[in-house]
Formats: sequence, C-alpha cells, structure tokens
Amino acid sequence: VNFPPLTLNPVFNITRASHVVLGVRDLAKSKIFYCDMMGFVATAEENETLYLRGLEEGCHHSLTLRRSDEPGCMRLGMRVQTDADLEPLKAHFEKHGLPAEFVEVAHQKRTLHATDPVGTLLEFCASMETRPRLILKMKHHHGACPMRLDHYQVFTSDVPRALAFYMEMGFRVSEYIVRDNTDDLFMVFLHRKWNPHDIVFTESPGPRLHHIAFTSPESYHLFHLCDMAASFGFGDLVEYGPGRHFGPGYAQFVYIRDPDGHRIECFNNHYQTMDIEDEPVRFNMSDTYGPNVWGPDRPETRRKEGSPRK
Amino acid sequence: VNFPPLTLNPVFNITRASHVVLGVRDLAKSKIFYCDMMGFVATAEENETLYLRGLEEGCHHSLTLRRSDEPGCMRLGMRVQTDADLEPLKAHFEKHGLPAEFVEVAHQKRTLHATDPVGTLLEFCASMETRPRLILKMKHHHGACPMRLDHYQVFTSDVPRALAFYMEMGFRVSEYIVRDNTDDLFMVFLHRKWNPHDIVFTESPGPRLHHIAFTSPESYHLFHLCDMAASFGFGDLVEYGPGRHFGPGYAQFVYIRDPDGHRIECFNNHYQTMDIEDEPVRFNMSDTYGPNVWGPDRPETRRKEGSPRK
Amino acid sequence: VNFPPLTLNPVFNITRASHVVLGVRDLAKSKIFYCDMMGFVATAEENETLYLRGLEEGCHHSLTLRRSDEPGCMRLGMRVQTDADLEPLKAHFEKHGLPAEFVEVAHQKRTLHATDPVGTLLEFCASMETRPRLILKMKHHHGACPMRLDHYQVFTSDVPRALAFYMEMGFRVSEYIVRDNTDDLFMVFLHRKWNPHDIVFTESPGPRLHHIAFTSPESYHLFHLCDMAASFGFGDLVEYGPGRHFGPGYAQFVYIRDPDGHRIECFNNHYQTMDIEDEPVRFNMSDTYGPNVWGPDRPETRRKEGSPRK
Amino acid sequence: VNFPPLTLNPVFNITRASHVVLGVRDLAKSKIFYCDMMGFVATAEENETLYLRGLEEGCHHSLTLRRSDEPGCMRLGMRVQTDADLEPLKAHFEKHGLPAEFVEVAHQKRTLHATDPVGTLLEFCASMETRPRLILKMKHHHGACPMRLDHYQVFTSDVPRALAFYMEMGFRVSEYIVRDNTDDLFMVFLHRKWNPHDIVFTESPGPRLHHIAFTSPESYHLFHLCDMAASFGFGDLVEYGPGRHFGPGYAQFVYIRDPDGHRIECFNNHYQTMDIEDEPVRFNMSDTYGPNVWGPDRPETRRKEGSPRK
Repeated sequence: VNFPPLTLNPVFNITRASHVVLGVRDLAKSKIFYCDMMGFVATAEENETLYLRGLEEGCHHSLTLRRSDEPGCMRLGMRVQTDADLEPLKAHFEKHGLPAEFVEVAHQKRTLHATDPVGTLLEFCASMETRPRLILKMKHHHGACPMRLDHYQVFTSDVPRALAFYMEMGFRVSEYIVRDNTDDLFMVFLHRKWNPHDIVFTESPGPRLHHIAFTSPESYHLFHLCDMAASFGFGDLVEYGPGRHFGPGYAQFVYIRDPDGHRIECFNNHYQTMDIEDEPVRFNMSDTYGPNVWGPDRPETRRKEGSPRK
Repeated sequence: VNFPPLTLNPVFNITRASHVVLGVRDLAKSKIFYCDMMGFVATAEENETLYLRGLEEGCHHSLTLRRSDEPGCMRLGMRVQTDADLEPLKAHFEKHGLPAEFVEVAHQKRTLHATDPVGTLLEFCASMETRPRLILKMKHHHGACPMRLDHYQVFTSDVPRALAFYMEMGFRVSEYIVRDNTDDLFMVFLHRKWNPHDIVFTESPGPRLHHIAFTSPESYHLFHLCDMAASFGFGDLVEYGPGRHFGPGYAQFVYIRDPDGHRIECFNNHYQTMDIEDEPVRFNMSDTYGPNVWGPDRPETRRKEGSPRK
Repeated sequence: VNFPPLTLNPVFNITRASHVVLGVRDLAKSKIFYCDMMGFVATAEENETLYLRGLEEGCHHSLTLRRSDEPGCMRLGMRVQTDADLEPLKAHFEKHGLPAEFVEVAHQKRTLHATDPVGTLLEFCASMETRPRLILKMKHHHGACPMRLDHYQVFTSDVPRALAFYMEMGFRVSEYIVRDNTDDLFMVFLHRKWNPHDIVFTESPGPRLHHIAFTSPESYHLFHLCDMAASFGFGDLVEYGPGRHFGPGYAQFVYIRDPDGHRIECFNNHYQTMDIEDEPVRFNMSDTYGPNVWGPDRPETRRKEGSPRK
Repeated sequence: VNFPPLTLNPVFNITRASHVVLGVRDLAKSKIFYCDMMGFVATAEENETLYLRGLEEGCHHSLTLRRSDEPGCMRLGMRVQTDADLEPLKAHFEKHGLPAEFVEVAHQKRTLHATDPVGTLLEFCASMETRPRLILKMKHHHGACPMRLDHYQVFTSDVPRALAFYMEMGFRVSEYIVRDNTDDLFMVFLHRKWNPHDIVFTESPGPRLHHIAFTSPESYHLFHLCDMAASFGFGDLVEYGPGRHFGPGYAQFVYIRDPDGHRIECFNNHYQTMDIEDEPVRFNMSDTYGPNVWGPDRPETRRKEGSPRK
C-alpha cells in the first residue's frame, strides 16, 4: 500500500489518545473489577459517574464509567495541544458534514464532541484537572498496575474511509494488515504520540469498540492480572493471553472483559516510532500464524464481540 | 481418601527424581531445541548420546538424549542416599516379582534398573560424576534458564496400583484428584524431596511419559521461553501456557513439546511440604474450572499424547 | 577443611528451620511494618503476641512477635519429624550438660526448649496448628510477597563449637568461609532441608541473631520491597541490597531492619543440595570481592549489629 | 522558578535524543563490554568505528564507538523531523555566534555539527539508514536487553545558560532540582519526545558527559545486567544501583562505567508528559534523602566523574 506522505500537521495538533467514557450497569461491581482487582486509581465518584486513572497519570481521569442501563462506549477522547487547536478541528469536521459541537464536560477544559465518518463518537480537549501521579506511591500499586491509557481499537466496516479521515487529521500509519498479498486493508494502526498506536481500525461491523489498552510495567503484572482475576472470581473474564503480538505492536498482552463485556488490554513493551525514515510496517493476515509465532488460536469472541456505541 | 500413615521409610532412602533418558531421532536438532533455544547446559556428547543438565545442577546429567530410530522414554531416574540403599531396593522389586538388576551406566555410580508394577522403566543410583554449578555463570543463562529437574508425570491405566507401590517405597502423597465427590483416583502426586512432586500418575493408557518438569526462575522466563520458541521456528511446539495451575502444585507453567514429541514443563513457584501436619490435598476434577481459575481449555493433545516406553 | 562424613541421622530427624520468636516494643508499629508493608499474613493477635506466616505456609506461624520492653530474639524454632523424635533430642542436650525442658507453647504441639553450646535459645516441635496456604489467594499478595521462612544466621564467638554440635545433631555443611587460604572458619552454613541453609554461624560476639530469611518469588519483589519501604517511610531501614550473594547461597537479596532493629532477608533463587556427591563448598573471605562480583561494600551495620538473646 | 511558557516550536522541530559518538581506546574490549555483556546489536564495524543499536531500534546506530587514543565524548546527536528543519537551526546557532556547519557522516543523511553555548558538541540530522528492529528476534536478546537510547546528562558550570538556549530551541522543562528552598537551579531536565528526558544539565565543571541512558524491559534485566557484568569480570564497573530515582524520572536504574569510564544508565519505567497542564516538577536537593527514599549514598565517582569533550 502506498500511503500519502506524512502530514506534518501544522493545524490540528492532536497529541494522543487520552480518555474514554464507558456506560456500565453497576458502578459498585465495576469498582471492584477496575479498582480492587485491576488496580486503577479512583479519582472521584459523583453523579453516577466513576472517574479512574492509571498509576502514572497526572490527569483527573483516563477512564470514565457512567451508570447506564445499556452498557456501551460513549466517547473516545483525544487531546490537542492547546484550546486554540479546537476551533480549526471543529471546522474540519463540519467541512466533512460531520457533527461537531462544544460541550461542558466535568473536570475537563473546553471540550469538542464530534463524530468521525465511520460513526465513532469522539471527544477532544487540550487539558483537564490534574491529580498527583502515583508512580512512587507503591502503597497504591496492585493488580495489573495499570500505568496509563495508551490506545483504542475500533471495529468499522469501512477501514479505508476511517484511514483517510484520520490521516487528514494528522495521524500517521505505523503498521497495517492486508489480506494476504493484496492491498486490501484489514487493520490500520494510527498514531500521533510516537509509539505505534493511538487508534486502530479493524474490519468488522461497527462502530463498535474492540478494546482500550493500558500499559503494565512488567510481564509479571500480566501474569498477576490473570491470577488476580481468578482470585476475585473473574477468571472467566480473562479472554486471551498472556501472549505476545507477533504482528503490530509486538507487545506482551492480556485481554480481559469487564463485567459489562468491555474489553481491556494490558500490555507492555511497545516501541518508539517517530523518525521520517520509519515506514509503515506491512503484515499479511497469515503472518501471525505458524511456527514463528506461539500461543493458542484467538478465541472467537475476540474476533466478533465489541462494545456498541451509546 | 484415607491414605495409610506416612511410611517414615527407614529402608530405601529414595531422595528425589533425578534424571531421565529419552530416545530422540536427530541429536543435532534436539541440541538446537534443548541447548540453543531452551537454555540447557551440554555436559558432554559421546556415543550418540547427549548429556544435559540445568544451570544450578552439579550432577553430570539430568536429561540424557540417546539417538534412536523410534523416540520414547527409556528410563526415569531416582536417587537414593547411598549405594547401600540399592540392595534392599532390589530385593523389594524382586519380592514383588518385578525385574531388577544392577547395570553399568556411564558417568553414574552403582545403578539399579527396575520396572514398577505399571510398567515404568526406572533407574536408581546414589551418585554420579559432578560438574560445576553454573548458577552464577550468567554468560550461560538464556532461554527458559532451566535450573534443575523437578518431577515426572506418567500415564497409567492403574493409578491405585502405582500409588500403593510407591507409598510402600516411602513416597508420600502431597495432592490427589478424584472424580467429583468420589474416592475414585484420577491423579496422584507423590514426593520424597519436600516439595510436592517427584512422580505423578494420571489415568490414561500407559506406561507412557506425560512430561518431565524443570524449574525456571521467574514468570519472565516462562514468557521468554515461548518467545524463544517462536524465534527458533518452534512456536507451534508451545502446547499450553503460560498459565497457572489452580490445582496441584499451584505453579505458573509452560508446556512445550520437543521435536520428538516429548513434553517438557517449565514452571516456578512450588511450595514446601514436609511437616507431619501436612495432609494430602484433595481436588475434585471440576475444581480446576470456573471463575476462580483463568486460562484457555487444556488442548486435547495434552490429555491424550505421551512418550511411549522404549 | 575436612568435615566428618555426613551423619545420616537416624536419631533426631530435625527437618528444617521453622519459626522464630522476636521481642518487639510496639506491636502496632510492627504490624504496619510486617503486614501492611512487607506482606506477611497475620494469623492471630492475642496476649500481646502477633502470629505471622508467609503466603505459602500452612502452619499457624513462622514469625511470632511478642510485646517486650527490650527487643531481642527469644527463640529460634526447628521442626522434627514426629513427637517421638523429641525425647532423644532432649537426652542429647542433657548429655552435653545443656538446658532442655518440655514447655507449653500456644498453637504448637509438644515443644522442647533447649539451649545450644554457644547460647542460642532453641525450640523444637514436630507440628503446630494449620491454616490455609494462601498461594493462590492473590488478593492477599503484596509487598515482598514473603512465601516461607527459610533460614537463620547467628553470631557466635565460637563457630567451630557450634559446627561440631549441629553436625552431631545431623546437620550437614553446605558451604563455609575461611580466612584466606587457611582452615580458620569464619562462617559455616548448615542445613537439613535440602536447600543450602537452615542455620548459619558467623564469627562475632554472640549469641546474637544476625537475620532471619524468607523467600520472595521474583527479583521484581525484591525491588518492590524497597519501594514499599520508602512508600511507608521505612526507606532508611533498607540496609543492604538489592544485591546478589557471590558467596554461599548465590541468591538475590534485600536486607531490611524492622522497627526494633531485627534484620530480615528476602531472597530468591537458592539451589537444591541433597546428593551424597555434593561436597561442602569452600570460599575464601576475599572471594566475594573484586571484578567477578558487583555491588557496594557491605554497610558496617551489617557486620556489627544483631538482635541480642532475650 | 517561573519558566517562560512553552515554545510550541513551529521552527526547528527537534524530535528526540538520537545517537552519541564516543571515543574508546580498544574497540575489541568495548565490543565485549557492549555487545557480549550488555546486549547491544552491532550493526557494522568499519574504519575503526563500531556502530551499535538497541534491540528495538530500526536506525543504523544509536551508539557509535570510535577508536581514539584519548577516550571522550565526540558528539551528542539529536533528530529533527525533516532535512528542511536543519537550515533554520544552523541559522539559529550562527545568530548566537556559535559554530555550525554541515558535514558528511557515514550512514546518516544531511547532518549539522554545532556547539551549544556551554560547549557541548552536538550533531543534528533528520534520518539515517535503517536496519530491522530486533524486538521479536529473541535469539539476539541478552544481557540488559537495551531497547533504545533515551537521553543524555551533561555537566556544565552554567546551567541557566544551557536552559535558556535549549528552551529557545523548543525543549520543554519536565523537572528541575534547586538548592533547597531557593530558585538556584542545580539540575534541569529537558525533553522533546513526550517522556521526561532528552537532555539533562547538572552543575559541575563542563562540558563533560555524565551519562547516556538506554531503556531495559524489566527490573529483572537491571539485576541481570549487574550479574552479567560480574560474570564477565566487569563487576567493579557497576557504579550505582540497582536502585530507584526518588527524584526526576522516578525510574529503576543501574549505572555502569564502560572500560573507558563512559557512564551508561539502564532504566525502565519513565512516564509520559505531553499535556499542556503538565507543569515542570520541582525538587529540592534534599528531597531525594530520608525515610521516603531507599538505597545507599550515591558514590563519589557519580558526582565527580564524566567523559571529557573530544
């Protein structure tokens, strides 16, 4: 595939995947799963909303859980560099005939709600309230020790359309998977923040959220997450892993489903990719099978299930 | 199940599972698998035989690979405390009408070959030649960093018969698995060396070797073994794991098959069991399923395949 | 040094270092240190006594903390195989003109108090009450994840006398340190349980306890113990490490002092030593210095300070 | 300290610390240290120059070792986004009356040599030749598993002058250390790439290189690096650690000196810092002592020694 040359993006200054809003049915149960078991920090609980962050995060929240009768993905949040970057971004969505409006969001500065061409509900802001980073507060470290939100994966039936729109916004392709020996895109991995992933699109009916991913410090923590899940009676929610991606990202991973079916990845070991000579890495779908790869077949749930848009 | 009280065993002084002899078809290929990939130390190669040991082992060999047109398990080795313990042991086998004879084995002191009542080919000796322990020779540490041989698992169609014979020899039951809520034994875990396993019997047509197990230092090494396997083109030989035993032993594990199908477990985290108050631990077969456990279903190969007796 | 041949010990059946009794000034503070910070399990608290055990231990206690105005080491506990092993042991002490009497100790079966020739207060029993092993109860795992008590180190001004007495009781020398190129013993490492250490004697005015040692699962936990100590305001109690013993034991370690100055080692990676061909390993004092070793000089406190006998 | 608001840097587009050139006396010895022991990948050796890279790096080199009778630091390399970013950068140095000229450097694209106001020899380029990333080629992983170059620390007698110049070039202050309760800067930590460090200035006679830092995957690898050093007879080159920074960066670390005295840090666990609300973090010099910190005193060599400019 020949991607257009990298947009050096003097306009929108989107910097990173930043936070997500999920609808959950039972906040108390979610709190046991995310805080007691996985090790997220609860910044605040108010108005039927639980605000969580990772151990190294100085922002108020990277994972917002909202009480909802129907679970689903409400927003995927991105940061821009300054408030001034939001206006041209709004104009950009409107130019494409897509919804975009400024809204009030608790604990965040000026926030833009917008919908991308494949139906993903997005949210952009430059900054939010801060809280102390708990990197050195080891009393608070347990479970998977989730450190920070890293990226999203989204199902869509039109990967090329999503790709074109995000590249126009200044995202860069780090990696992509094609149907073997064709240029037919199955997955595209897009980033802004100099590691390979901020948002990933996979071909499957959408818009649905496949997973959100948080970093964990060591392979020990991936093992320990599974053990903790079993210790809390959540063992059957461990969907896939501990394993290794022998395709995009190359990370060690565990995928776990929360009590509402939202899929969370904990991983470590991404790589840095920011130089002009870093070309998008091409994978055939079959590259991730065979004797140069280890691990069980991906479970069917992994290919098929996702969180609906709400 | 009511086991007879522990035989304090003033007679045979069997001390531990010690070494195994496997027939393999291609020594060069086995050497790549065991030495280059898994990280075993090659003590010697002579007479179509490759002698391997783990990084902490001071004995000449714990894993002997012999060139053979048909792969299989040739001997499971046990240590006794002194040469003087071998004579009464020989008499014990003969009293049961079982084969037992003294043989010459290279690099080992006085050695007794014997066959247990379920057909397992055994080998007993008190000592063998020594070599330097390589615990601190980190130049030699790589792959799974196998430290030492720990135990065997054997298929037999008559678990109670094996159990009775090994208890008579002074083995102690650490754990056992029954068909749910019965006293029908499916697996028995026997030990001499104060951690829970030296030899394990599982109900399935036998005698066949299910696996031999070596210790690895950390969960990192279990992950790394799988990655190394893939890096050497052996990824499809990773059969099961990385995972956690939520039954006997409680260890973190990886099971891998060698190029001849012999199954090797690398694990860490066993526990100490040596006090008079340590009762055998009972598990129902179904205890290892459900939300208090994590991980994929055991692959069918794991239940069915083993190394034949040769 | 020529040690007498191993006593195969048909008489006393001492099996392992088992439990210790320490006097501490402030039980509440000790509980924060040992339970909240280090990760010990509190089995019970009663009669100004706190009973602790490691995560894998099924015995009622391996570390007993007793309120005392003057901190000190009250007893070092050893297990024998059965109650019947205690009588000949009592007679053995008496034969040497040493104190030995049966006493009642809460939660323990028949218990013998005795004093060795260098003044160490000992306690022998065959069994105690049991509690569930928490190996798989990961909710309870934190801090250093201490798994089990492993060994003691004791200061004495007469190492050869201690050595002779313990060998008579059936202990075996795994390792020893001499003044360079002499047979002048500086440290002797004695064991019963088939890893290298149950009790260690070091030349220095005594009897004083140098340290008690517990196993931790991975190098991660040794690092994490130090971080936890700092997180609890105990950072200045980390005395030495994380480091590696390039002498006896070969383990990775951290030494930390408790609020009363008692020294605790957390370590991993010991080796198995039980075969007749395993000769005692000789080290010169200078072997643990130089370019084949890494790490800072041992702090002076480590050489000089210990817990007095109480 | 009130830093000027962040320059959003529309001009120079410096992206990251990228590569370093060190003079060494004996390339063969350096190769044993860096490749055999530490685990660097040797991309090429030619013209008395050894080109090394980390396991995840796709660039030709991040560490260039040049045979030289006098060891020293020859260049610290930075990347810019495109070749077009080099001209305005050259003009910027010239405007300040500082040396700046285009040069030919093997395996690199257009390269600018320049000297900063405190005498540091710099080198800027947008791209260089590429080589395969070896993240998944586990056969090549050993030692500290250095993944990628992360940052430099430089001694200078005029920290404020260096700070002003680098901020003008678009660097951002992540952290700084002051003499207690003053605004007197002792260290400043500057970055471009969204983790906290690309270049750090410390007050001490300069210009001298304090250290270059590479990432290692896990705490295990920091321990293992020290063990490997000892195994190669380099144990006395381990200068400081394994330890934890309770000041800027918060990382776990080991500092080791190479055979020419150049100091290398291996670390893990940095944090992400890229949002407009991330204020520079202030530390007093004394913040890194006391009970909320663990570890031995920094060795005197660490405070005093560095690689001279060559």
